[in-house]
Amino acid sequence: MDRRKHSTAMTSFASLAELRACCRDLPMGDDSAAEAVAHREAMLTKPPGSLGRLEDAVAWLARWQGRAPPRLARVEVLVFAGNHGVTAQGVSAYPAEVTAQMVANFLAGGAAINQLARVAGASLRITTLSLDAPTADFTVGPAMDEKEFLAAVASGYEAVSTDCDLVCLGEMGIGNTTVAAAVAAALFGGGGTRWAGGGTGIDARGLARKRAAIDKALARHANALSDPLVVAAALGGRELAAILGATLAARRARIPVLLDGFVCTAAAAPIKKLNPNGLAHALAGHISAEAGHRMLLDELGLVPLLDLGMRLGEGSGAAIAVLVLRAALACHIGMATFAEAKVSDKAPAK
Amino acid sequence: MDRRKHSTAMTSFASLAELRACCRDLPMGDDSAAEAVAHREAMLTKPPGSLGRLEDAVAWLARWQGRAPPRLARVEVLVFAGNHGVTAQGVSAYPAEVTAQMVANFLAGGAAINQLARVAGASLRITTLSLDAPTADFTVGPAMDEKEFLAAVASGYEAVSTDCDLVCLGEMGIGNTTVAAAVAAALFGGGGTRWAGGGTGIDARGLARKRAAIDKALARHANALSDPLVVAAALGGRELAAILGATLAARRARIPVLLDGFVCTAAAAPIKKLNPNGLAHALAGHISAEAGHRMLLDELGLVPLLDLGMRLGEGSGAAIAVLVLRAALACHIGMATFAEAKVSDKAPAK
Repeated sequence: MDRRKHSTAMTSFASLAELRACCRDLPMGDDSAAEAVAHREAMLTKPPGSLGRLEDAVAWLARWQGRAPPRLARVEVLVFAGNHGVTAQGVSAYPAEVTAQMVANFLAGGAAINQLARVAGASLRITTLSLDAPTADFTVGPAMDEKEFLAAVASGYEAVSTDCDLVCLGEMGIGNTTVAAAVAAALFGGGGTRWAGGGTGIDARGLARKRAAIDKALARHANALSDPLVVAAALGGRELAAILGATLAARRARIPVLLDGFVCTAAAAPIKKLNPNGLAHALAGHISAEAGHRMLLDELGLVPLLDLGMRLGEGSGAAIAVLVLRAALACHIGMATFAEAKVSDKAPAK
Repeated sequence: MDRRKHSTAMTSFASLAELRACCRDLPMGDDSAAEAVAHREAMLTKPPGSLGRLEDAVAWLARWQGRAPPRLARVEVLVFAGNHGVTAQGVSAYPAEVTAQMVANFLAGGAAINQLARVAGASLRITTLSLDAPTADFTVGPAMDEKEFLAAVASGYEAVSTDCDLVCLGEMGIGNTTVAAAVAAALFGGGGTRWAGGGTGIDARGLARKRAAIDKALARHANALSDPLVVAAALGGRELAAILGATLAARRARIPVLLDGFVCTAAAAPIKKLNPNGLAHALAGHISAEAGHRMLLDELGLVPLLDLGMRLGEGSGAAIAVLVLRAALACHIGMATFAEAKVSDKAPAK
């Protein structure tokens, strides 16, 4: 576990308007770095394009790092944890105190993400967000007021080390697939039936409660659904808000982002609603087995790198995707060119 | 590159009948080892099944190693290279001499598989199979006679180190997607149109030649298509035969196998035709972008671990899949149990 203090300056957003402006005014990628990668790929000893998404991934890293070749010397997994008032509706297979118990497990090194971050050569940082003060039950009122929401966004923004090469985002929060489904429904239409899934493994009656809670929340907040940031505040959660902030901070610091599963993707989705290019620096590390994730990725135009039937969260799918990026970069940097290896790259005359 | 001599005893098959008997008399997996893995998985701090295919993969490793937990201390990538008389028909985008040039590139460390094996923590061994004497053009006669075929099978069988924990199989051979398509067509029906794809990147006229060559071969060898091993000899290639031998050797030595792409899968396919359980110790590392691979995997009942749009061969997709297995094993071994971490694993009463 990396306990070193991150290096990002303190950030705060004074208002939703200021955060909205930030989402809309984002730096673009470096086309020339991506082109330099493509130029080298074409010279390497393999049929053109034969490394498929590995080639695309290296160009994507270069574009958003603004550097060719890109590097993966310093990779961070940031996991944000929050608690949710909607758990009062019986929407999860686990009690809410598991959030804090799992944070303790993260700090002790016993969770999946600890093992996966180590295998991926990534440091791991856990940020807890007021676990003792869950958000309000969104079937009754807004999950967070504007101030609470902006503070959580700022926590995520500040968690990104501006000198790292890749950020993986993840979350922990009992009840947060219900929250993510509500956010997705509000942003992209449909109700609890479309977006709610089994989460950590709820039974049929629990799933019915989950769908009902989402539909109740959508009805209660119907007047707020046109503003993506108001959606994120009223129907979201603190760890989702932090992921939104971290995604923004990474963009501004030229750091590519690997998103994890359903909750993580839903957390970042408001940025895309505010700025069609707003998630171009983010790659979906995997597609989760959680029911709504495929639809959500489709809505966002994200094509997941891995499909391993996982549905754990914690950044676990993103961490495994780091391994694919490391493989891709190793090929890009280490392979010989046709000229160096004296391999013919011409087709026989026919 | 691992230049150490492998430890398998010399093997030879006196006849197709003897090889056929070997394919039919294979040891089964260790159910108790797989069950021990599943038992531990259920105690780890995650919702049951939430690591998806990672959990299945660890159980699979345990089953075929006969050991719980399994280990991945010694992983080998075996790449077999051969040349093919059918290249005279203009079926490849590259000239046949590229096979030997790429072998030199492997030995010099400049190919994709060199980088990927290193990242995967695997040793790499290249076996060349009479590159100066290509197989016969199968549109004219059998690619190999029985003796040549059995010798190539034995080369592959002997290449497997009996003390390794996982074997990844790969190949290099200009023209060998044509060969693999012919083998797949002979084993599973359909002709050149069903099975031929772009290979290393052939143009439309080349693809037409490729399909015609396959159809001509299927017609010429029509009387031989009912025997999977005769198919492998008449329509196959030496590197494909070696992969068949290596797949058998691994099974007998209790070593799980990661298959690579279309050519590698076609090479192992005759075993499944002879023994419905014959590839149970083999996992498809990835699905290739080569057109026939998805159909072939479906015919064999194999579900690929990765889908990265790759179509390089060399064992490249299998090597990347090793990373997923390492991630899976790290979780299985390193995670805390619910009891150890004092995390609640009970649902709240509702």
